[in-house]
Amino acid sequence: MTIKVFGHTASTYSLVVLHVLKELGLSYELIQPSGFEEIKSPEYLATKHPFGRIPSLNDDGFHIYEARAIARYLINKYQGTKTSTVLIPSDVQKAALVEQFISVETSYYTQPLSKLVIQLVFRKRCGNEPDLKIVNEAREELDKTLDVYEKLLEGKDYLTGEFSLADLLHIPYTFFAINVAGEGDLWNKRPNVSRWWKNISERECWKNIVADIP
Amino acid sequence: MTIKVFGHTASTYSLVVLHVLKELGLSYELIQPSGFEEIKSPEYLATKHPFGRIPSLNDDGFHIYEARAIARYLINKYQGTKTSTVLIPSDVQKAALVEQFISVETSYYTQPLSKLVIQLVFRKRCGNEPDLKIVNEAREELDKTLDVYEKLLEGKDYLTGEFSLADLLHIPYTFFAINVAGEGDLWNKRPNVSRWWKNISERECWKNIVADIP
Repeated sequence: MTIKVFGHTASTYSLVVLHVLKELGLSYELIQPSGFEEIKSPEYLATKHPFGRIPSLNDDGFHIYEARAIARYLINKYQGTKTSTVLIPSDVQKAALVEQFISVETSYYTQPLSKLVIQLVFRKRCGNEPDLKIVNEAREELDKTLDVYEKLLEGKDYLTGEFSLADLLHIPYTFFAINVAGEGDLWNKRPNVSRWWKNISERECWKNIVADIP
Repeated sequence: MTIKVFGHTASTYSLVVLHVLKELGLSYELIQPSGFEEIKSPEYLATKHPFGRIPSLNDDGFHIYEARAIARYLINKYQGTKTSTVLIPSDVQKAALVEQFISVETSYYTQPLSKLVIQLVFRKRCGNEPDLKIVNEAREELDKTLDVYEKLLEGKDYLTGEFSLADLLHIPYTFFAINVAGEGDLWNKRPNVSRWWKNISERECWKNIVADIP
């Protein structure tokens, strides 16, 4: 049975799930909600995602929501069956370092970055002006985080040395910040960060996904 | 060799790591930093945690930071060796549901709750007045989240049915909110949430830890 993804190509977390599916070589059917009302409807909240978000996934009757959980599920179940890409290594210490950088990504990178992208991309798209106080604070916080990344990435192509789920989770929000919000300088001015972004954003699977982003 | 934890019994994320260690039946040595300056020192940033936080852990020379990553590492390596407690099940679907609720905890529960606790507990401890705008917004957001939890916990003792890492990660911040900030009503007024909190906060391992909280 085909894996069904309830999500949208304009949603960063949906793009994470689609990217993981492609890296693992899995085929899927993307079911896009008709709009904001649908994902807040009682039926959606009861059957898809109780917090009214996307994405969620249905794999032969097994239903799960939240992108990071979906990614780990797909990796646990399918990694190595269709492609040789390793997103979470089986070695306990190597896996721990992937998890360490996922936590770094969640806490210090995506937290300020998502605020920046929400203000400069998603709010604008809805016709609202960005809140410049939030934009400036988020940019400043992200700037400090990227200073640390510049050190962490010294002599490395990827956060743990090899491409992993930790790197992948950084891609969609960074893509919107650089390519839509025009904030590329934050990444470009740091040689290690810039090299890392090139490495992760030029993966074939991601380039296939970018072609479908509206 | 003894597992060394760099952390503090007043730090919520350190308490997560100590609780996991106790649930798994592992002995450890807790090394508490002398103060805020120590964890921001160049030596600490270079060797313990590049973002200047606690906790980090050293297991026979293997060093790792970030509580959620440390928890998963300890579980992957030691679960089942000393106690029968299962924090992440080996079954792929059951593990996926634990991860789903960890993501829910991170995104919808701890995000507003941590703001509330930082304002009402940690800022006060440093002699600062809480920012009431932040307090009210965080309380409102948490209230909505707990409405969803009340439904999710209908007929269940724990989030996935059985105690897991997902439940455990909720404990420290909730403990401070109820027992120090006096916000217990948010939990007590909801029968399912209240029953769940009783189940998770009355675990022997947690009660042992509470005795050491300053």
